[in-house]
Amino acid sequence: VTQPLVTLLTDFGLEDGYVAAMKGVLATQAPDARVVDICHQIPPQDVRRGGFVWASAVPFFPPGTIHVAVVDPGVGSRRRILAAEAGGSLYLVPDNGILGLVLKRKEVRRVVCVGRGANFLEPLSSTFHGRDIFAPAAAYLARGGELQGLGNAVRRYAWLSAVRPSRRSLPGGRLRVKGEVLYVDRFGNALTNLVLDPSVALEELHCGELSFTSLAVTYASVPKGRPLVLVNSAGHLEVALRDGSVAERYGIEVGAPVVALWRR
Amino acid sequence: VTQPLVTLLTDFGLEDGYVAAMKGVLATQAPDARVVDICHQIPPQDVRRGGFVWASAVPFFPPGTIHVAVVDPGVGSRRRILAAEAGGSLYLVPDNGILGLVLKRKEVRRVVCVGRGANFLEPLSSTFHGRDIFAPAAAYLARGGELQGLGNAVRRYAWLSAVRPSRRSLPGGRLRVKGEVLYVDRFGNALTNLVLDPSVALEELHCGELSFTSLAVTYASVPKGRPLVLVNSAGHLEVALRDGSVAERYGIEVGAPVVALWRR
Amino acid sequence: VTQPLVTLLTDFGLEDGYVAAMKGVLATQAPDARVVDICHQIPPQDVRRGGFVWASAVPFFPPGTIHVAVVDPGVGSRRRILAAEAGGSLYLVPDNGILGLVLKRKEVRRVVCVGRGANFLEPLSSTFHGRDIFAPAAAYLARGGELQGLGNAVRRYAWLSAVRPSRRSLPGGRLRVKGEVLYVDRFGNALTNLVLDPSVALEELHCGELSFTSLAVTYASVPKGRPLVLVNSAGHLEVALRDGSVAERYGIEVGAPVVALWRR
Repeated sequence: VTQPLVTLLTDFGLEDGYVAAMKGVLATQAPDARVVDICHQIPPQDVRRGGFVWASAVPFFPPGTIHVAVVDPGVGSRRRILAAEAGGSLYLVPDNGILGLVLKRKEVRRVVCVGRGANFLEPLSSTFHGRDIFAPAAAYLARGGELQGLGNAVRRYAWLSAVRPSRRSLPGGRLRVKGEVLYVDRFGNALTNLVLDPSVALEELHCGELSFTSLAVTYASVPKGRPLVLVNSAGHLEVALRDGSVAERYGIEVGAPVVALWRR
Repeated sequence: VTQPLVTLLTDFGLEDGYVAAMKGVLATQAPDARVVDICHQIPPQDVRRGGFVWASAVPFFPPGTIHVAVVDPGVGSRRRILAAEAGGSLYLVPDNGILGLVLKRKEVRRVVCVGRGANFLEPLSSTFHGRDIFAPAAAYLARGGELQGLGNAVRRYAWLSAVRPSRRSLPGGRLRVKGEVLYVDRFGNALTNLVLDPSVALEELHCGELSFTSLAVTYASVPKGRPLVLVNSAGHLEVALRDGSVAERYGIEVGAPVVALWRR
Repeated sequence: VTQPLVTLLTDFGLEDGYVAAMKGVLATQAPDARVVDICHQIPPQDVRRGGFVWASAVPFFPPGTIHVAVVDPGVGSRRRILAAEAGGSLYLVPDNGILGLVLKRKEVRRVVCVGRGANFLEPLSSTFHGRDIFAPAAAYLARGGELQGLGNAVRRYAWLSAVRPSRRSLPGGRLRVKGEVLYVDRFGNALTNLVLDPSVALEELHCGELSFTSLAVTYASVPKGRPLVLVNSAGHLEVALRDGSVAERYGIEVGAPVVALWRR
């Protein structure tokens, strides 16, 4: 028998005891579960960034993993907490759309609204559902509990979508694609929402004051201190700087427009 | 048989290899133990903040857990290292009072002074007892060793207390309660030492330039950008801002006075 | 049977999902392995600092541990990835010399170049070998795979050395030793490359504007706010400040010269 695996994504940070309180509840209620941190440094209440980080790690965990995300501006209000089954894994999330940044609609097999009875901590606080609801619900699933045992099925729930680029056909089989920077990582790399179709080739890409006419294979493909654009590890176009932060050096932020010309 | 559980709280931070060195010693001397991080970002030598973070997580771990706290301004001096048993769990701490921020005196069943012989790493450094004494002592307990095996019982030891608010009765069954901000968390929420008795109702609360005449149920109870006061997940009154940092916006720091009027 | 132990050192930071993606691959391909973080806050591409942090923790893990270090400015270029066996433990590193900061040459028993076939993730990205090569290779070793199964033996590879101090004999059996600050830790302590031989005594030590004529035993040996020099937990001379950061207060940085007079 393999140990059940629970992953945690939160905006709780690492300076307080909040994440550890969740782990204490898990250790008490599901002593066999293994807990893996995805990230706790999501900027407070930044659901989009949380979803992006989540999506970069979740697909690499084995089926059967219980993924818990607590980036939850609505804690204590009437927003629901959802448990979902998709692709053989389980997801516990506030009903704020974050699922849509990680899953495709058709992957979702079942969604229930987590209700009373799921071993909530008592007295239930109105400000820390991560500890009082999410952790006990995750422990219940880790002990082999059925999704239905957590609450009733729901059909409608929030669903954020990744920002999609717009495309316009130009004469001569060319395409003009407008997207944006989705994410700036620790290295200052600017990840865009542009995905290069195998049927097209990049002719030009513009982001802020930077222009590129070719794709680099990797960071080390250009000399130190030079900007580049490449296909990153998630398959997206990424603007970067060899041995430095392109975001800092060129003032590129999340939401910055990116325009590309593609040729078939 | 359940795996022994060891938690770690330190002020070692996450940029160096200090925490990992402790985990290496634990993995060597108690290969079966599971190690859970409480927090390593306690500001250097800030015993009070360490105790506060510890107290927010420790009660959620199962009995039998071995809790290790190394926030230790006196490392290498003659300050003692204590091992304590309380409420079915075990505690390893420098003799600096931090136990008093997590336990009640009457819960403490036994305290010993950790002495030579407890598998200290040799040569014993005078600057890194976390690795050379705390980790081997925790490993000894995780292997099922008896508390008494670590050293002789002690009766007197340091004991810090949480700062208590003062109360003054006013005419008409009202109470004037003066307390202070104990802690500012990652979200900029200001946690106070005021606990609302079920027999009283809040009439007014003042903190810095902020005044409140009612309790919010949760952060989402007020409009975005508005300050509020609520009962937090530890049962304390907390001053917060919907979707922001009250500490930053209103310059509220640890130690800031908080004054409340309560009515029976 | 003990669980295989894998440690991770990277410069990926804790704000993104990169470390978690590696852990997901490990959980998928080596479900029994236990993963321990050494440090993920190495400044981007700072191989020397990475090696220093690595060396402060690696020796405390049990033999048989699989140590993975991904501080890798050359990712995606033709730099090789090495797997090494030394002192009963295994090491996975980019061929950038970092092994030399942790091991002695004579400890190294075998080195192979990790080649295709070692369960690389497909499609192999050119920017995230931590996830696509290092994690699968570590999983292979954790499942008990032989080093030779990862690739062919290599005889030449990069090897960084710790900076060595220079020594000059003076009249009267004295020695003038010139070294430098190797590392500044979270507490602002300045760790030097000077190691005090048991056969000599310190007469003087100078670092920036600071001068010392005696060794302190520990931080608490001097009054609060006073600078000191001591033998640290790695056996090196370290310049520190009681209850403060010597680096910040006296502007001491990595590379700052340190000059000592020793007497036999």
